[in-house]
Amino acid sequence: MSSARLDARLAQDSYPVAELPLCQLRLMDDARFPWLLLIPRRPDVSEVFDLDEADRRQLWHEASEVGRMLKALTQADKINVANLGNVVAQLHVHVVARVRDDDAWPGPVWGHGQARPYDLNELAGMRDHLLAQLDGLNLQP
Amino acid sequence: MSSARLDARLAQDSYPVAELPLCQLRLMDDARFPWLLLIPRRPDVSEVFDLDEADRRQLWHEASEVGRMLKALTQADKINVANLGNVVAQLHVHVVARVRDDDAWPGPVWGHGQARPYDLNELAGMRDHLLAQLDGLNLQP
Repeated sequence: MSSARLDARLAQDSYPVAELPLCQLRLMDDARFPWLLLIPRRPDVSEVFDLDEADRRQLWHEASEVGRMLKALTQADKINVANLGNVVAQLHVHVVARVRDDDAWPGPVWGHGQARPYDLNELAGMRDHLLAQLDGLNLQP
Repeated sequence: MSSARLDARLAQDSYPVAELPLCQLRLMDDARFPWLLLIPRRPDVSEVFDLDEADRRQLWHEASEVGRMLKALTQADKINVANLGNVVAQLHVHVVARVRDDDAWPGPVWGHGQARPYDLNELAGMRDHLLAQLDGLNLQP
């Protein structure tokens, strides 16, 4: 994150995966759900509509393409895409793969029970899968 | 909704407010939270990334401008913007105004307790406020 310092809570709860044109892509440390975060490298922004129009378009472009990729990778039933930000003010968009028998279905994942941290093998495997898929995406503006 | 039939559950749980260029704008019948839905008039679409690019841009444009308007109108602390769709398959985006002492803060509104239906006066007042504010928005593509 060159042009915006990453919030401490986001840093603690997730692992870095890749730098996209606008966003840092991170993996939430909760093996119950394939759960990504996109965090625009812009300081002092909390709401999507506080980005300028070019950044706003790029954020949703990246979130959409990442969501499509994650759905294909995980064979999910539905992708949840959300900017909440009630706890962490720094603008971040959740992209979460949901299946009908996951731990929280059909409810939301936020605030549901306790996260199950990845072990090192799971984490490495998940990052490798994600990086291989990201390679094929066109994320340029 | 001319070109896509509105899902029965969405119809039951919310009131129509306005037709935007792409979406029908509806008010969720839950007076605990100022809570809007944007439903693109496109049949058989569940995921944001299943829209074509022009529609996808327009959806987020409408959601952003509506979110900005709702924040100003309600003096909210944060706007939550989300496409979940675990229960209702028809593509719909939630735009919810949150304040630090609302009934679910800082948790998500989905699945939180029981909705409190608007009474007729509240509903008419809320619709009038929304329609007055919408008048000033530029929602064209």
